[in-house]
Amino acid sequence: MTFDPISSLKAFVRFPSVSTDPEFAEGMQGARDWLCDFLKDMGFEARVAPTTGHPVVIAHRKVSEAAPHVVIYGHYDVQPPDPLDKWASPPFEAEVRGDRLYGRGAADNKGGLMAHLSSVKKLLAEQPDLPLNITFFVEGEEEIGSPSLSDILEKYGDELRGDFLLLSDTMSPTPEQLGITVALRGIVTMEVEITGPSSDLHSGLFGGAVYNPVQALAEVCASLHSPDGRVNVPNFYDAVVDVQQWERDEIARLGSDTESLRAFLDVPDFAPTGGLSPMEVTRVMPTLEFNGIGGGYQGAGDKTIVPSQAFAKISCRLVANQEPAEIAALVKKTLLERCPPQVRMEVHVGHHGPAYRVVPPGRSDTPADQNAALARAFVAAEEAAKEVFGDTPVYLREGGSIPIIGQLKAALGMDALMVGVFTDKDRHHAPNESLHLGLFEKGQLISRAILEAVAKKA
Amino acid sequence: MTFDPISSLKAFVRFPSVSTDPEFAEGMQGARDWLCDFLKDMGFEARVAPTTGHPVVIAHRKVSEAAPHVVIYGHYDVQPPDPLDKWASPPFEAEVRGDRLYGRGAADNKGGLMAHLSSVKKLLAEQPDLPLNITFFVEGEEEIGSPSLSDILEKYGDELRGDFLLLSDTMSPTPEQLGITVALRGIVTMEVEITGPSSDLHSGLFGGAVYNPVQALAEVCASLHSPDGRVNVPNFYDAVVDVQQWERDEIARLGSDTESLRAFLDVPDFAPTGGLSPMEVTRVMPTLEFNGIGGGYQGAGDKTIVPSQAFAKISCRLVANQEPAEIAALVKKTLLERCPPQVRMEVHVGHHGPAYRVVPPGRSDTPADQNAALARAFVAAEEAAKEVFGDTPVYLREGGSIPIIGQLKAALGMDALMVGVFTDKDRHHAPNESLHLGLFEKGQLISRAILEAVAKKA
Repeated sequence: MTFDPISSLKAFVRFPSVSTDPEFAEGMQGARDWLCDFLKDMGFEARVAPTTGHPVVIAHRKVSEAAPHVVIYGHYDVQPPDPLDKWASPPFEAEVRGDRLYGRGAADNKGGLMAHLSSVKKLLAEQPDLPLNITFFVEGEEEIGSPSLSDILEKYGDELRGDFLLLSDTMSPTPEQLGITVALRGIVTMEVEITGPSSDLHSGLFGGAVYNPVQALAEVCASLHSPDGRVNVPNFYDAVVDVQQWERDEIARLGSDTESLRAFLDVPDFAPTGGLSPMEVTRVMPTLEFNGIGGGYQGAGDKTIVPSQAFAKISCRLVANQEPAEIAALVKKTLLERCPPQVRMEVHVGHHGPAYRVVPPGRSDTPADQNAALARAFVAAEEAAKEVFGDTPVYLREGGSIPIIGQLKAALGMDALMVGVFTDKDRHHAPNESLHLGLFEKGQLISRAILEAVAKKA
Repeated sequence: MTFDPISSLKAFVRFPSVSTDPEFAEGMQGARDWLCDFLKDMGFEARVAPTTGHPVVIAHRKVSEAAPHVVIYGHYDVQPPDPLDKWASPPFEAEVRGDRLYGRGAADNKGGLMAHLSSVKKLLAEQPDLPLNITFFVEGEEEIGSPSLSDILEKYGDELRGDFLLLSDTMSPTPEQLGITVALRGIVTMEVEITGPSSDLHSGLFGGAVYNPVQALAEVCASLHSPDGRVNVPNFYDAVVDVQQWERDEIARLGSDTESLRAFLDVPDFAPTGGLSPMEVTRVMPTLEFNGIGGGYQGAGDKTIVPSQAFAKISCRLVANQEPAEIAALVKKTLLERCPPQVRMEVHVGHHGPAYRVVPPGRSDTPADQNAALARAFVAAEEAAKEVFGDTPVYLREGGSIPIIGQLKAALGMDALMVGVFTDKDRHHAPNESLHLGLFEKGQLISRAILEAVAKKA
């Protein structure tokens, strides 16, 4: 029986593996069991391994200590399918319409993972003796922030360490242009709460004598940016690595239709970006963003009070080499220093994940000691892209965050080659998620080229 | 049968006349009918007169065109009694315990009004020919902001015009010290709303390129005060009349235990007040206060978005001679001018009421053309207070607002003599509202002295 990647992907998509909702426990188990069997069937030593949360699937093909070792990462969990009534076909039926496969997880990340499963399966069928150690590491908690990662690293870290990480959980610009992600922003969240009087006060009786907590919060928050748009927190930018010209050149390949982006976002103008284009600034610069603010009366009409409390939710997107804990400490210190003495402030630091950046070989700042297997993989991807896409890949820093990439780098020392097998038109996390089957097929060819090149040690 | 003011007040309090809740329509009608009958029984030409909202009770005693004319103001509506479980006795049963009468409205304003009803009743029983025109004007919408006032003035303005307004809807410092209120702050409310992108955005994909509406709001709000605590809106203070030394001397009579006030409010320190004490600043200076702020994510944990919108609710307390509409226009203009051009702002002006100020005779700034009946009333109140309280009244500017006083002054040209018959210990608007019966009795004596003095034209 001939192997058909689309049929296999359909089978994989049919498991409703929603990690955030315990109602979907059966779908989670179905997806990981199916995946484990698929890997065993390929000749891998595969198992479902327990964690403090959803189990991971770990599978090894070990040929020799001397051979290079690629670790392929993916996740079998998916976002919830709601709202169900917005789907043109049921989210877990995996229907092909036109050149797309529709279903929750079709792109993110079952399709991305299947591109590599398929290329490995075909490659090993043709070259059973391929001198390459391959590990699949497929987690079930990516969509809920990988809470069991430290447990996973503690239990299984040693067997997950390879030359580099290969994955497809980021985007390409279009199905006709391969995108390779070379950086992800990190993140750290915090909440600041200001308390004035112990209860709301009548603004007639006390207004003017008491420092209004909303005013204090507004003053502190307003101090956190300079008019040029930069974050006004001392030492905030100290660790930021300069953007290289090659990175700006790559971003420029996307074009720069700022006017249509402005119209799409429906804003009168963009924020000050210090000479960078709006497309550049979100990819290469850190931010301090207010995600929410609240305090005092929220209803219709008026309530003439001096509120007792006010809060703001803040998150910072970070770039290499900013340390989340360090940035959190800087922002917290600044908030507390700027708090008017007439009120009280508490700052709670929330979750964080590190930024990540990798430099392909041959660039102005490529590390001299770059892993040789990773370098070969980058070169192979570029050569294959020229053939398959007719152009070199575009190497993009991304504004979003996949904290696990930076965490695996920190814990296991592995860099990541992130090959885009879906695009921003694929509606991942939204109704009618789909995978472009043309890009899926091209992705398999890129994956195969990478694996072959890595196996062929110089 | 001897008239007993406490029994009459109890009967009046027993009507649950809550104006804000239609469920209490019967209580409202009961209260105004009872009051109308009470006034008729005193020989007044009394009626319940319709308005666009709750009817008013209007009652006249007209002796001659030549005689002075006192208009006694009050309101028969009360605040809702909730939370009911905090009351030691049912709110509408009017129970005497110790030296206090407990019940919703016992102080605010049925007790205050009854002090004048009682003094008029007794005075006319003794002096049936008293040469004094008296009008009672008792509304049913004070607790909901007197929304029908313009309708009332249009329909009944002419018959409500007298030499001055006499009322007891403000406070005395203690039952042992008579307070006469000589100013009320005005008020104007507004809401400012800032819109950035047309929907919440992913802060990873767009953070840094889009001006955050919460940031814009914080910046605009933070600009509205100077470090010295003053409102930083051009021309905001232009119309403010200087505080007179006699006013500061009167406030100083209250004492200035700022430390116990600070501890009571539970704030680390007071706001900067430009050399005034916290007790002074709330009485003599205007404010710009944030009553509420909101925008973006309000729930637990994090949501890493650039919010689409943010709002702030603002109110200004005003002092003489600031015009609410003018101040609203100044603040609105300033807000719009300071809005960053990358976002959109809307400002909605809400309700407003003018500030009010009256100067007793013989002060540094007493108007030369002060109404003679009002002047006699002030002098009589002072003389009577010396006798009844053993001290002159304390003449206090108040920080709160009773918009109707300024509106009646503007519409009918009448100044107001505001005699305090309850205190801030009486828990008006709160559970276990009560009236101190000693102060109630003293208030009746002051009221009587005023009426007799006004009747005796120089």
